[in-house]
Amino acid sequence: MPLFYSPRLEKDSQNIFIHGDEYKHITKSRRKSVGDKIHLTNGKGILATGTITLIDENSLKIEILNSEEKTKTKPTIALAFSLLKKNNKLIVEKATELGITEFFPFISKRTIKKNYSEKLRLKLERVTIAAMKQSGSAFLPPVNPIINYSVLLPDLSPIYKPILAWEETKSKFISSALEETQKNICLIVGPEGGFSDKEIDYGKKHGADIVSLGNHILRAETAAIATSTYTIFHQISKNSNYY
Amino acid sequence: MPLFYSPRLEKDSQNIFIHGDEYKHITKSRRKSVGDKIHLTNGKGILATGTITLIDENSLKIEILNSEEKTKTKPTIALAFSLLKKNNKLIVEKATELGITEFFPFISKRTIKKNYSEKLRLKLERVTIAAMKQSGSAFLPPVNPIINYSVLLPDLSPIYKPILAWEETKSKFISSALEETQKNICLIVGPEGGFSDKEIDYGKKHGADIVSLGNHILRAETAAIATSTYTIFHQISKNSNYY
Repeated sequence: MPLFYSPRLEKDSQNIFIHGDEYKHITKSRRKSVGDKIHLTNGKGILATGTITLIDENSLKIEILNSEEKTKTKPTIALAFSLLKKNNKLIVEKATELGITEFFPFISKRTIKKNYSEKLRLKLERVTIAAMKQSGSAFLPPVNPIINYSVLLPDLSPIYKPILAWEETKSKFISSALEETQKNICLIVGPEGGFSDKEIDYGKKHGADIVSLGNHILRAETAAIATSTYTIFHQISKNSNYY
Repeated sequence: MPLFYSPRLEKDSQNIFIHGDEYKHITKSRRKSVGDKIHLTNGKGILATGTITLIDENSLKIEILNSEEKTKTKPTIALAFSLLKKNNKLIVEKATELGITEFFPFISKRTIKKNYSEKLRLKLERVTIAAMKQSGSAFLPPVNPIINYSVLLPDLSPIYKPILAWEETKSKFISSALEETQKNICLIVGPEGGFSDKEIDYGKKHGADIVSLGNHILRAETAAIATSTYTIFHQISKNSNYY
């Protein structure tokens, strides 16, 4: 049964009205009709089953049959990535499918296109909604406002252990850093041209573990997807109930 | 220094002539001139450094300064994937960057578009060349002819341990299957609609380990990239010299 998104859904909701993009998705793309059952989530842990009881020109009504509240598994794994010329959507789509819980897009020294607007952030948010629904998850990862790398690190450190992938280090493979921490993790991946030495020093000063992804040189988007995959799969291998 | 591809390069080559796509890549895209040094590989383990000594209208000449022969690390990790409506190139690009050593594209029961031609295989081959160069590897993963799933399994079993990702199993996470084998591995990922129960039974009969990728439902291309990443990173975590 397909999963749809309604931010208004609450644990005790009895009826939900759906408009806009999601209305179109349910009625046009998925061709659902009155009487059909669907799953709904609010992206904050509520997962409900309901029946479509009414469809009009701009909205539809769902009667909730039952709902449950999911708990976010720990540690949570966030992804901070330098905005790329292309492929930002690919990163966010794949990482959301896999189970990244929060995104921190940032601008660093070698970020190619530095003038990103709120419009891009909203686009990435739409990608997270589609990917969450696809993956069957009840958690929508927030896409935080685009900030500078210099502001990112101090922001992260109370909540997350920062683990930064750098193609110029060979000393420590990502697996060792994952073994060493019990905290929530924020993976950090740089732009097409990589991080500067200064930026790496700044990262270290703010507690970041600098790690290698092996000897192959990965494109920036591949590095972001690969670190997300490996970190999440590493958690599942330790705890089969992980997410 | 950028890496380029010449299948004619051998261990004792002294001069190499380059034509066609690679000629264009070196002179037009990367704007190299006479006197510039570049790296070259034959995609079979030879990695050489050379100087461009001549550029004419259709070809260029490289004088080889030194060359070394790399050994392919074991176990090798291959990827068999059902051809998708879209995203076949994405799978092959990312998996080559990461270090997959051989591709087996196949058609199974729920493959949507079943009439693939040799043209698609050649396109995928061009993607592997670009991705190998990007990743700095000296090994070009062959893209085998497109075959049926029923033929694939018996073909694999003498050489590879088949590990098949199936969204309907929850019993064994991929990490356990990787721990249990010392053999070369062929990862197998199905089409958009998944494998049928019959196909899974057929896989088991031919020695395939059926594994889960966790509770999130992944798109077919995400599953292919994620299994490749996790398997390769798992090897590197056990042996830091792996590839």
